[in-house]
This record gives sequence, C-alpha cells and structure tokens, in this order.
Amino acid sequence: MTQKNLLLLSEIKPSQETQFTSIGVTLFRPQDLNVTVDPAQINILYGWREPFGSQVLNAPGSQLEWVHAISAGVDYLPLAALTERQIKLTNASGIHATAISQSVLASILHFVRELDIAQVNKQTRHWADRDEQQPHVVADFNYAIFGTGHIGQQIARLLKAFGAHTIGVNTTGHSAPYFDETVAADALTNQVWQADVVVNVMPLTDATHHYFNQSRFNRFDPLFLFVNVGRGPVVDSTAVISAIKSGQIAHAALDVFETEPLPDDSPFWDLPNTLITPHNTGIINHFKQAQVSLFIPNLQQYLQDGTFKTNEVQLTKGY
Amino acid sequence: MTQKNLLLLSEIKPSQETQFTSIGVTLFRPQDLNVTVDPAQINILYGWREPFGSQVLNAPGSQLEWVHAISAGVDYLPLAALTERQIKLTNASGIHATAISQSVLASILHFVRELDIAQVNKQTRHWADRDEQQPHVVADFNYAIFGTGHIGQQIARLLKAFGAHTIGVNTTGHSAPYFDETVAADALTNQVWQADVVVNVMPLTDATHHYFNQSRFNRFDPLFLFVNVGRGPVVDSTAVISAIKSGQIAHAALDVFETEPLPDDSPFWDLPNTLITPHNTGIINHFKQAQVSLFIPNLQQYLQDGTFKTNEVQLTKGY
Repeated sequence: MTQKNLLLLSEIKPSQETQFTSIGVTLFRPQDLNVTVDPAQINILYGWREPFGSQVLNAPGSQLEWVHAISAGVDYLPLAALTERQIKLTNASGIHATAISQSVLASILHFVRELDIAQVNKQTRHWADRDEQQPHVVADFNYAIFGTGHIGQQIARLLKAFGAHTIGVNTTGHSAPYFDETVAADALTNQVWQADVVVNVMPLTDATHHYFNQSRFNRFDPLFLFVNVGRGPVVDSTAVISAIKSGQIAHAALDVFETEPLPDDSPFWDLPNTLITPHNTGIINHFKQAQVSLFIPNLQQYLQDGTFKTNEVQLTKGY
Repeated sequence: MTQKNLLLLSEIKPSQETQFTSIGVTLFRPQDLNVTVDPAQINILYGWREPFGSQVLNAPGSQLEWVHAISAGVDYLPLAALTERQIKLTNASGIHATAISQSVLASILHFVRELDIAQVNKQTRHWADRDEQQPHVVADFNYAIFGTGHIGQQIARLLKAFGAHTIGVNTTGHSAPYFDETVAADALTNQVWQADVVVNVMPLTDATHHYFNQSRFNRFDPLFLFVNVGRGPVVDSTAVISAIKSGQIAHAALDVFETEPLPDDSPFWDLPNTLITPHNTGIINHFKQAQVSLFIPNLQQYLQDGTFKTNEVQLTKGY
C-alpha cells in the first residue's frame, strides 16, 4: 500500500480517525495547510470546502488524485478542472436516500392528511366538523418523481407501500426499480402533465438548470404539491414563487434554493402553504458515521489498486 | 328475501340509494320517524345517532334486529340493551385503517424529520445550520403499538416499510400480522417500557378505560412521541397533559379526547409540541362510498340467511 495524505474538509468524529490511519492514511485538517503539510502534498480530499479545496487543487505541483464529495450532487465542484487534470471524483450518492425519502413522505403526508389545516385550527381553537375537513389518502393522488436514482427509488418504494402509483422521469425513460412507469424528461406524457404531486430529485447539470420554469409550471395541471429536494437551480425561483402565490401550486415543500442560506428578505420565507427546510433533508444525526462507512471501503480499494468499489462520478455526465 | 325497513342515521349519497332499494330495503331518514314510518317498524339502523337510535330501540314492540356502526369502536352504543335484546351489531372495522395509519405516519414523520422545528424557523426566518439540526430517521426509534387489529396492523406494515421495529400490545400477546413481536397488555416487557414511540389504537372497554394513566406514563422511559388515535377515554386527560407539560412526553399527536368536541377552554389546545386533530384521522373524502361498499355485501347476506359476511361485533367483548 502507498502512504497517502488526506485532507478532511468534512469533519469526522475523533473515534473514527483510526479507521483512516490504520490503513496507512495520514489525516490533515485545514489548519495544518502550510503549517505541517504543503497543500501540494495532499492526495485525497474528503469533502470539498473553499478556500481549502482550491488551495490544494491549484497548488503548484499538486499531487491531488481524488476528491470525495459527501453529497450526491457534485455541481458545486470545479468539474472542468477535475476532468482536465484527470482527478478522480466519488460522491455519497445513496447515503442520503433514506433520510431524503422520509422527508419527502413527511411533506406528502403533512398536506394529504391535512396537518396544515389542523395546525391552523389548533391555534384558533377550532374543532372542524366532518363536513368541513375530509382529508385525502396518499393513493388518491398521482405522483411524478423527476430523478430515478437512489433517492427517487426510495421515494417510489415508500409511495408504493402507501398504495400510490408513481411515474419516474429520467434522461432516457429507462425503467427503474419501484416505479410503475418511467418517461424521458424531454418527452413528458399527458400522465406526467396531469400529476397531482411532482417531486424533483434531479441532479443539477446544464440540461436540468431551470428545468422547472414558468412555462413548465403553466403546462402542468394545477398541482396539489410540488417538492424540491434535488438542487435549488433546477427550479426557477421566480417561477415557483409565482406559481405558489397564484395557487397553480397549492402546496410546496422546498429544501433547496438558488441562494443558500436563504437571505432574511427572501420571499420564500413568506410563501403560504409551503414547508421550508434548510437544505438538510439529507442530513441524519449519525451522518458522520454513515459517511465514513461509505468512504472507508472505497479508500481501502483505492490504496490497493487505484479503483473504487462504488460511487465514482462520471465527470462528463456530472452525476 | 324479506322486505326490511332501514333507518339512515349516517347519510349516504343520493346516488347510493339504489344499492339499498334494489335488494328490497326501504330507506327512511330521521325526519320520516312518526311521519311515514312508526319507529317500531325499523329493522335496521345504519349508523347510530341520538335521539333517533334510542327512539327506535325503545319503541314499544320494536322490531329492531340489527345496528350497523360506521365506526370501528362501538363503546358509545347501548351495548347492554343490545345484548339483552339479542340485537345484532356490526361495525366498520377495517374501513378506517388506511386513513388512520397514514395519519399516524404523518405525525411520526412530522416529528422524526423535524418539520416542527422547520416550521418555527420559517416563521423567524432562521436558516438552521447542520450542527444545529440533524433530524432522525424512522428506524432510529422503537415503536410500541397498543392494539393489533386492522388499524394497528396497517401502522406496523407502514413502519416496516420505513425499516422500523414494532412491538404490538394486545389482550393476550397473540401474534399479529406485520408486528415483529407482540406482548399482552397486562404483562408489558422492558422493551415496551423502553419504547420511544407509543401509539394507542385500543378499543374502549372496561379494561382499557384510563389504561394510559399517570402511573403508566411514569413507568415509560421518556417518550419521543405519544399518539392517540384509538379512543379518548383510554387515556387519562390529566395524566397526558401533565406528562406533555413536564417533557416526559416530548411530542404528542392526539386525535381523540375524553370530551369531544374539545371546549374552547380545553388545556389541550395550548399544549406545546402537540398535533391536535378533531377525531377525523379515520375520515377520508370518499368515506360514504367506502362505508356503503362495506355494508352492502353484509346486507345482502343478512337478507338471505340472517348472517353476516364480516364485521359482526361480539357483544360480550365490546369489539
């Protein structure tokens, strides 16, 4: 095995350090750069965070070989530079699927079972009678999930447990586990345009930037619920805000935004019938442990033969 | 077939009337009593509502043979009189399972995925960072479901889809579909006392009245979540209010109460970390259709041979 220098740009627990060092990796942290280690000597980045990522990437004589993103999406990385320099890239796709899919179901059930109305009625001490409030069940609605990777599949699997019909949307319309049917993103069918609930989990690429724009929102039948747990810039902020305000989108659950953190004066904070979460639906409270458990087998394999067991990103595709 | 007179104490849609009349049943409504029909001539009650139920039951020479409750619980009926008079009783057990189980999952996901915190932060325009908010996932908690009938089973089935471990509690500890294990209500194990989430779906009987009292709440380890979608009087109001206020119960979702509707000055309205719904988690927007679809096959069978296909209540047990 070769000795490698790894810079932690995402923190691990102290108790996890031996999992790295026992297989011959030396750990550094941002405060070690230019103190105990020359940025050029870093071989592996665990996580990506500026300015440290660029310091290592652009150090004269940089020996950077591999960047591991602790996210599923890699759009925030300097992909062109990585490609040109033939630096390998892995991501944490799959690790967020359980958490994100549960947040999506939390939002769906919140509005389908009318917890939103119940919360308002609690504040006004109003006991709704049965003619007034007759919540739906999950299978009353049709679901279109944009993105059929790990996360989309887990959403579809859970919706199936609730008896719902799901259509998956992906690049080519190829079939995917747990989806009742799939269609291509550039050839949506009437069934998709007539969906009641639309969930975005697509990665951000040139093709998906502002995919959900004014014209697409107009083309959908009025939506019961729009959920974005993919990437902020896949949705045109102005378009989604306007669609929610006009009622074209009756309810929304938004976890990602074009500008994060949301500024104090963001109009998103004021949207009615909208759940806002701070880009954290993929976070779980044993996140560090799950991240390291995904990474270590890849690290072992890489030290042995320079390949990966899993989760290598195809840089030309961007996911 | 015999001609029977049926009094509708729960409304059906006008379009559903032929489903009754085409098999030889004459329909009456409360306003027909003592006008077009003598209360004593009513053979079947569809639903139970006072004062009409008692008018029919107690009419001199009453020919009442069968009461069909549109609920799963039958505690609000005059069970002693029905037993003595050998009047048959059916209920709508099973019809509410889909809706109630989805409301239970809505509440669980609401607190597990920290939508409650997200809602407060939205109001104060606060973008929580990742050290501040790290939601759990469903399988991080242990679940004890009190009641293993239709509703409890559907809750357990859904929790299993989320990867959770479920213990069912019932009268004898007999096994039940979808539960990982079951124990008897009068012989709870440490595993039950250490559950994080407790859901009550038990029917109200002499044995379950105030089953959840101060002493039981004290014996549980602090609960992450307590859910009551069974019957109000199974839970001692004073005890649950006190346990929520003291933090012994961190979160609660309550659909049923000892006094319904909740009066304006009820302390339940003010409870923190608590979802309140107006005894409607079993209601769905196609409720009338589902009720009639359950009832008609039973009616047909009864007209033929006086027996029921399904859902006859054992009056001595009360469920």
